[in-house]
Amino acid sequence: MAQLGLIGLGKMGFNMRERLRAAGHEVIGYDRNPDLTDSTSLEDMVSKLDGPRIVWIMVPAGEPTRQTVAELGNLLSEGDLVIDGGNSKYTDDKINGDLLAAKKIGYLDCGVSGGVWGKDNGYGLMVGGAASDVEKAMPIFDALRPEGPREEGFSHAGAVGSGHYAKMIHNGIEYGMMQAFAEGFELLEAAKVVENVPAVIKGWQRGTVVRSWLLDLLVRALDEDPELDDLEGYVEDSGEGRWTLEEAINNAVPAPVISAALFARFASRQEDSAAMRAVAALRNQFGGHSVKKAGS
Amino acid sequence: MAQLGLIGLGKMGFNMRERLRAAGHEVIGYDRNPDLTDSTSLEDMVSKLDGPRIVWIMVPAGEPTRQTVAELGNLLSEGDLVIDGGNSKYTDDKINGDLLAAKKIGYLDCGVSGGVWGKDNGYGLMVGGAASDVEKAMPIFDALRPEGPREEGFSHAGAVGSGHYAKMIHNGIEYGMMQAFAEGFELLEAAKVVENVPAVIKGWQRGTVVRSWLLDLLVRALDEDPELDDLEGYVEDSGEGRWTLEEAINNAVPAPVISAALFARFASRQEDSAAMRAVAALRNQFGGHSVKKAGS
Amino acid sequence: MAQLGLIGLGKMGFNMRERLRAAGHEVIGYDRNPDLTDSTSLEDMVSKLDGPRIVWIMVPAGEPTRQTVAELGNLLSEGDLVIDGGNSKYTDDKINGDLLAAKKIGYLDCGVSGGVWGKDNGYGLMVGGAASDVEKAMPIFDALRPEGPREEGFSHAGAVGSGHYAKMIHNGIEYGMMQAFAEGFELLEAAKVVENVPAVIKGWQRGTVVRSWLLDLLVRALDEDPELDDLEGYVEDSGEGRWTLEEAINNAVPAPVISAALFARFASRQEDSAAMRAVAALRNQFGGHSVKKAGS
Amino acid sequence: MAQLGLIGLGKMGFNMRERLRAAGHEVIGYDRNPDLTDSTSLEDMVSKLDGPRIVWIMVPAGEPTRQTVAELGNLLSEGDLVIDGGNSKYTDDKINGDLLAAKKIGYLDCGVSGGVWGKDNGYGLMVGGAASDVEKAMPIFDALRPEGPREEGFSHAGAVGSGHYAKMIHNGIEYGMMQAFAEGFELLEAAKVVENVPAVIKGWQRGTVVRSWLLDLLVRALDEDPELDDLEGYVEDSGEGRWTLEEAINNAVPAPVISAALFARFASRQEDSAAMRAVAALRNQFGGHSVKKAGS
Repeated sequence: MAQLGLIGLGKMGFNMRERLRAAGHEVIGYDRNPDLTDSTSLEDMVSKLDGPRIVWIMVPAGEPTRQTVAELGNLLSEGDLVIDGGNSKYTDDKINGDLLAAKKIGYLDCGVSGGVWGKDNGYGLMVGGAASDVEKAMPIFDALRPEGPREEGFSHAGAVGSGHYAKMIHNGIEYGMMQAFAEGFELLEAAKVVENVPAVIKGWQRGTVVRSWLLDLLVRALDEDPELDDLEGYVEDSGEGRWTLEEAINNAVPAPVISAALFARFASRQEDSAAMRAVAALRNQFGGHSVKKAGS
Repeated sequence: MAQLGLIGLGKMGFNMRERLRAAGHEVIGYDRNPDLTDSTSLEDMVSKLDGPRIVWIMVPAGEPTRQTVAELGNLLSEGDLVIDGGNSKYTDDKINGDLLAAKKIGYLDCGVSGGVWGKDNGYGLMVGGAASDVEKAMPIFDALRPEGPREEGFSHAGAVGSGHYAKMIHNGIEYGMMQAFAEGFELLEAAKVVENVPAVIKGWQRGTVVRSWLLDLLVRALDEDPELDDLEGYVEDSGEGRWTLEEAINNAVPAPVISAALFARFASRQEDSAAMRAVAALRNQFGGHSVKKAGS
Repeated sequence: MAQLGLIGLGKMGFNMRERLRAAGHEVIGYDRNPDLTDSTSLEDMVSKLDGPRIVWIMVPAGEPTRQTVAELGNLLSEGDLVIDGGNSKYTDDKINGDLLAAKKIGYLDCGVSGGVWGKDNGYGLMVGGAASDVEKAMPIFDALRPEGPREEGFSHAGAVGSGHYAKMIHNGIEYGMMQAFAEGFELLEAAKVVENVPAVIKGWQRGTVVRSWLLDLLVRALDEDPELDDLEGYVEDSGEGRWTLEEAINNAVPAPVISAALFARFASRQEDSAAMRAVAALRNQFGGHSVKKAGS
Repeated sequence: MAQLGLIGLGKMGFNMRERLRAAGHEVIGYDRNPDLTDSTSLEDMVSKLDGPRIVWIMVPAGEPTRQTVAELGNLLSEGDLVIDGGNSKYTDDKINGDLLAAKKIGYLDCGVSGGVWGKDNGYGLMVGGAASDVEKAMPIFDALRPEGPREEGFSHAGAVGSGHYAKMIHNGIEYGMMQAFAEGFELLEAAKVVENVPAVIKGWQRGTVVRSWLLDLLVRALDEDPELDDLEGYVEDSGEGRWTLEEAINNAVPAPVISAALFARFASRQEDSAAMRAVAALRNQFGGHSVKKAGS
């Protein structure tokens, strides 16, 4: 059985510790929250690990992850291995990997998909880095990934950064798929030709072309709230969709669906649209079309 | 000087009567509103015209226009000419034209652009029908169109229906242009890099690639209300944008800009979006992402 | 066991006959192709069925289906039932249903999803019409739908027309999902950060948010042709995507993803784009930007 | 009369020198091309200017401009002023301005619109930087901008960077407007309801809502080539459109029209689309739909 240091025991990290322990691995967790942590500090966590050590980082992307990598660079030893399992931008991985490589510490980036369901179903994993490092961490990956053939829930995507790149594109696709279901749902609701919208969507779960996990989740949501009117049409975005669109720009690749899905989220968060005020103003100017006065 | 019967003396028809009379033409108007009309009924109006008569229809598109054409078919005589200057769908023109042709009454469809400014600036005209009928009505068209070379403010687009077709496409383009300006305005407002947004937009009126009448109108609107916050971002659509998109579908022509402009108007009128409730619900299902509860 | 007349034994109808017979039902097929048919004519087929009869139509949508319904109206008797399982536009169903109702013949419209895989996996079914007619045909539906809970592969969507409506929206969603995967695939190919694109996509099949039947099919396609370069990026569309967009227009529902997916198909079939020639011409006009001359 | 050093005498810089000299200003140009230059080196150019000097940079954006600014920092003196009139990204301006500010040399960024027509019509100018620096250079700006009220062809947008920011957004709008006209043109061409497409477009120049300089240029292009079939639908993009979309992402502003216009250009340059190969492959997988084999 393997041994792992795991930094960050939030919603994702906590569940991963559970799944790893259930598979028989030893996990020494570290979190600032004393109710969650298995160690008092990063130093303490590192000291409890036998070498060569493997440390998994599961903290917020950006500064927190880069800071943690830098600290680990000072605490770990040649031959140890760091895995960033958070949602880092793939360009951060080069920086993190180079910093550790200078100290002969290995680095892997691992995109993780599956959300809160991963604890029981396993997580889809996309890994970037050296094959020898991937090999070292394979018992961990095998415990985290879903059951079934390894290659259906795990991939070694390429060099450092490619794991998070694959996850970023995965999320871009996810945005597009969600918006496709969402437009279909709204059309069914609006047209009122179909009398039982939740029944139709539930009936798509087997045999159809659109059957998918997202569809299963939509069915689940409709079971709880048949018109989804307990919540607002207000949707956050968490970075990967934006980065995917940046990649489309950088590579001159048309991405009309992914961008439309991202823009729909932006628009969902606006109380009022400056753009549409401009269109209303223009119509009023040329046509004398009536406008809605603010506050009316 | 020509003589014209003019049915419908609303915002557009009223102004057109003014412009025609200012050019020296005789106009016998008919409107249900006794304060506006020059005649007591369609029959009365027709009786006041010398043959061969020319009658211009300026009533709402659809049923009102089709009904008016049918009534004129009973009142007019062989050799008379009807012109539909409203915003009819081009497919209506075939029906209207055939109905009148069976009685040897001529028919022209005329797309009219220019809004409330047309009275003073002249109207852009796009006409469909027989060349001989176009010739008969040319004094009217010449009075309505802007000054300058005829071919820069008037076109004979082709057979019956082609005038309204040209106007429909004109409006589709107009939707796209307005949305382009609107997105630019919102970006300038949101980024706050430019300190004086109205001054920048005013400064685009000469020398730039985007100089245009719509830009002049945006400058005018910003002069009155520099952040356009006296009105709401709520925008109606009047049919031509939808028809343009239908034509894109029917002809398998990609129309991403025109459709985006139309959809932005649809979205501007929604209090809340069922589609985005579905996306929020899905994110909540797989990630435990927090959602905004309705009414919170 | 039930008995069914089945008109149209093409790719879909042939497979359905197989699946129905494998389930123990008696199927009298009719097709113009003598190698496929079980009967010599519609009359012959009808004569071989015991009353009350059930006849399933599986011929091309539009005129062929409407024509077949009309012929069946003359051949069937009060109390018989016709099911249109083709890809008819939902507005046709009202016409077909009314025609048969006048003769006291029942009518159901049934959207069928699943493609060539349906023979073995079962077909996703969405049915519109009277509950009593749905009940009569349930043994047939149960044989055609996938195994598992009925409500996960079958739905009674509402009145006549609602089955095809549900299928139309299903296909609109399908367009959006396919385009989402397609954009992600192109981004992975173009950026070359991921070294093994097919392995990454295969690794998405378990545990991830995008896991779906379409993903499984993409994996299958990549197994056969890892860069998909044995075929051209030329994609037909079969009607439902266009109709979905028409519904978006008619109901004032924004559908940016579904329209983008449809337009991408339109564009894929163009040798050259008149729109982009216009943009090239404009750039050349204002900036002296070089253009590609045709034929160069 | 003012005196100006002008670096870069390509298509734009050459014309600007002409316009400035025609207005009576003294211009010492520098260009690597000995046929164009007025000086043998930057040093030579600087030595020929009386202090306090004004130097206008008109070289390609990015490294060439940053390099030129750095060299000028070594050659100029406290109180001199540098103006970047190229198409620099606005983020470069902060770097350039800070570098010069450390030496007490002023810096303005100036977005310039108008293309090859600017020489005769004047250029639309958008300037960022200190008001005192703008004042110093006003005689130059007044010579370059179009005749008419200054505020209709010139704006002081705000601090350093805001001039290029305003120009970037201007170009994003320009992309959207061009694509709107392009879609309209393609629809007119495809539908064939309008018989004389160039005549209709020419007739939009007066009185209509879409009248604009871009429309005038489209008319000019159609006069030369009525179906625009002398060139290919292949369109470059020059950076500002991409940057505008990045700003939309960074500011969470929906930009469906500008992104659609940019993506249409990307697509116009693709021989074949990997995305559409993926869609074709998927359709083939689930439906047995025929595909076009590559090379067929």
